[in-house]
Amino acid sequence: MSSLVYEFPLNEKCRNYLRLNELQQQIRLCRELSAPGQATALFKALLDIMELLERCDVRSDLAKDLEAQRGRLAAWSQVPGVDATALAQLQGQLEQLAQQLPRAARLGQQLREDKLLAAVRSRFAIPGGLCPFDVPQLHYWLNLPVVRQQQDIDGWLAQLQLLQQGLELLLTLWREAGQFRPQQAVGGFFQDGAEFTEMIRLRLPAELAVYPVVSGSKYRFTIRFMPVGNHDPGNVDFELANIK
Amino acid sequence: MSSLVYEFPLNEKCRNYLRLNELQQQIRLCRELSAPGQATALFKALLDIMELLERCDVRSDLAKDLEAQRGRLAAWSQVPGVDATALAQLQGQLEQLAQQLPRAARLGQQLREDKLLAAVRSRFAIPGGLCPFDVPQLHYWLNLPVVRQQQDIDGWLAQLQLLQQGLELLLTLWREAGQFRPQQAVGGFFQDGAEFTEMIRLRLPAELAVYPVVSGSKYRFTIRFMPVGNHDPGNVDFELANIK
Repeated sequence: MSSLVYEFPLNEKCRNYLRLNELQQQIRLCRELSAPGQATALFKALLDIMELLERCDVRSDLAKDLEAQRGRLAAWSQVPGVDATALAQLQGQLEQLAQQLPRAARLGQQLREDKLLAAVRSRFAIPGGLCPFDVPQLHYWLNLPVVRQQQDIDGWLAQLQLLQQGLELLLTLWREAGQFRPQQAVGGFFQDGAEFTEMIRLRLPAELAVYPVVSGSKYRFTIRFMPVGNHDPGNVDFELANIK
Repeated sequence: MSSLVYEFPLNEKCRNYLRLNELQQQIRLCRELSAPGQATALFKALLDIMELLERCDVRSDLAKDLEAQRGRLAAWSQVPGVDATALAQLQGQLEQLAQQLPRAARLGQQLREDKLLAAVRSRFAIPGGLCPFDVPQLHYWLNLPVVRQQQDIDGWLAQLQLLQQGLELLLTLWREAGQFRPQQAVGGFFQDGAEFTEMIRLRLPAELAVYPVVSGSKYRFTIRFMPVGNHDPGNVDFELANIK
């Protein structure tokens, strides 16, 4: 039985982390432009990241959170049987990223100066606005040899590498730390305290014809399981992990 | 030596035709969701079509243009050696579409009533707004078995079938009727009269490091070849077809 995991951030900072991480994954999966439509998805993800980074500078938050993880890991070094070498390596990685991030140039700055990205960006929101007659330089670019396209893409992604490494590492550590525990949503409804919680993760069988909708504040969160179709969701058994 | 074709509409109607046609091609190429990113491209194309169809009702223009093509084809029936059966079949197709289009319900109406499309649409413009926590029903849908997804996609595309057939046929006839003729843009610049012209098509060697930018009115159009990089475009040899 396959299961499906949903993640819900409970604050603005974590919402930005998850959005940026999701977009970076999209880029990673589409960067080779090996199938139709992947250029559209790649540009959307790049433009969305640029927009998010203009609105919020995540460098210092991310550095603080990485530093906090380093503190937590220190406690593990006393536990017998822990792989000390791996632990030291991870701590080194965290320290390096936490130091580099605040010193880095504002993330995404150079992407904003790229002519092709600027041209695509100016038309992306127009319905059908990426037609060859709208952005002829994109039509030209899409017909360049793959190796030339990859040079450009690699150049864009290099600008986001530090962010990508930092987010990937932090979210992996967060996700691994949050243990799933069985819960039941009576009548499809569940609520709990949210203090110090960055995000919650829900795991439920993929076959279940419901999807969760979460609303949360600093102190509480509620989950409502919405039925797909017209049935009553009834009691829903699921697993929940709180990431603090 | 491979070549690259650029099409530029010279009026609003033709601009809409080309946009809708381009989006429909995108959908056709992505509809099987066989690679990452194709869902994003598919939804963008569907939402863009919905938006275009809300702004402009192309049914009657398209019916008129198809009817005009039927008139033109009639002249061919007198030419010796023309395949009369194929011609009659094509005329039948044109007649049928020209009759069905004005009688059809407003195109895209039912798409606007689709719950999933409405949910995706409400978040699409938000940077990173298609994250699982933003549109959990999309996350659920993306993890459904392929056969279930294809049912939904087929249902959406059925709403656009008449439009797709009409546009495809009209644009094919237009494109075939417009013969390419060699031209030269002295110093990268070219202009000509545009009366009765729906769109122009440009063909140039793909290796040429320039892309064309066209501005046009009802009476004239100008083409300027923009260099990619810092070189002077010089005189540009290209081929041009006027579609009337």
